[in-house]
Amino acid sequence: MSHPPRHIGRLLFPGLTQLDLTGPAEVFGRLPGARLHLICKTLDPVTADRGLRILPDTTFQDCPRLDVICIPGGPGQIELMDDTPTLDFIRRIAEHCQLITSVCTGSLVLDAAGLLDGYQATCHWSSIDQLALPGAIPVARRVVRDRNRISGAGVTSGIDFALSVVAELAGDDTAQAIHLQMEYDPQPPYACGSPHSAAPALLARVREQSAGFIERRRQATLRAAQHLSPVSHPKP
Amino acid sequence: MSHPPRHIGRLLFPGLTQLDLTGPAEVFGRLPGARLHLICKTLDPVTADRGLRILPDTTFQDCPRLDVICIPGGPGQIELMDDTPTLDFIRRIAEHCQLITSVCTGSLVLDAAGLLDGYQATCHWSSIDQLALPGAIPVARRVVRDRNRISGAGVTSGIDFALSVVAELAGDDTAQAIHLQMEYDPQPPYACGSPHSAAPALLARVREQSAGFIERRRQATLRAAQHLSPVSHPKP
Repeated sequence: MSHPPRHIGRLLFPGLTQLDLTGPAEVFGRLPGARLHLICKTLDPVTADRGLRILPDTTFQDCPRLDVICIPGGPGQIELMDDTPTLDFIRRIAEHCQLITSVCTGSLVLDAAGLLDGYQATCHWSSIDQLALPGAIPVARRVVRDRNRISGAGVTSGIDFALSVVAELAGDDTAQAIHLQMEYDPQPPYACGSPHSAAPALLARVREQSAGFIERRRQATLRAAQHLSPVSHPKP
Repeated sequence: MSHPPRHIGRLLFPGLTQLDLTGPAEVFGRLPGARLHLICKTLDPVTADRGLRILPDTTFQDCPRLDVICIPGGPGQIELMDDTPTLDFIRRIAEHCQLITSVCTGSLVLDAAGLLDGYQATCHWSSIDQLALPGAIPVARRVVRDRNRISGAGVTSGIDFALSVVAELAGDDTAQAIHLQMEYDPQPPYACGSPHSAAPALLARVREQSAGFIERRRQATLRAAQHLSPVSHPKP
């Protein structure tokens, strides 16, 4: 049985959270007909936030037309929020995509590129409120779809997200086969994976540990919102 | 607050299933004091079964003493089952490890190295029966611990597995903080992630697709069992 080729691109950048990329990659790689493209400014190795070194497949310049673009998140996302070559690339490649997608704080990058203005989207729980600054409509769910935008929440949500994307592209039968191949029968050892289920003391501790970092992200999101505002809301 | 350094090594090899490695890496990388080592025969880039290219950090020769060794699985595991340099390295490095661990079919490699003889262990559902051939005791659970051996089942189980390992190394508080940071609140789109929950037709289809491959793995496991037998059961 032949399968239609599906060109699925994922942005690779220094300081990304690698599971935002590698969770969906495991799902997408099992889609019959999938052609995966890992896209970066150059072909040099990229180091993730906790040290994993990954090689890109292609560059902004050489990337073919895609069916799906996916932007992962992670601390390095902050640098992308006003990185013109990256935002220009995302806008250009997204133009012909069937689905424009993100995992974790990758949605903030899509938002900075002006691609979520007026769209519902999700993000890592620590930063979801920031989506509203450039123009998205934050919705605190694990996977959020609005027209042809699909976003996943924090880090591990990328697996749930990618199974939804595969279901959209190829149907439930294909997504279910991948689900079983990947033995996706999660049994978390604790019930503390979201701010709603975590004990208040744990939530406060994790929030406190990352407060400085989240504020730095907020400043970048505010700058991105200011860059966008003349475009989104032209002055008379 | 200073944290004791924890040297956590993971084997990297061509044709591994990258999520077996990258799921646990995301958890281990968040352990305060963690020193991660990605170990391969050489420092050349390694290509995973679905094309992701990853750079090793160190070699069999240069790898420091480890607190934890983890062997991921994937199709490339078949080649390791009678690869003497790899099995020798694993036996040597495991000697001083506090925990000897695996994800997915990585347990078959530990088994081929003689390190699971008489130990309970788990594996990807498609191949768990093969664990008995070299000498392990298969137990079909998501995460299995027997003395200082900890194994995870197929692919996505690596996240549950690694949270258990972190709890063992650093306690529940640390593991819970990582759990929340990673927004590990899984919401699988289907209930078909194990052979017990999947519909019989789906299970039959996935089994049929991989039958030739699983048989090739079985032949490698049988060869490994034969190599071990003079050691494990010396003739009088």
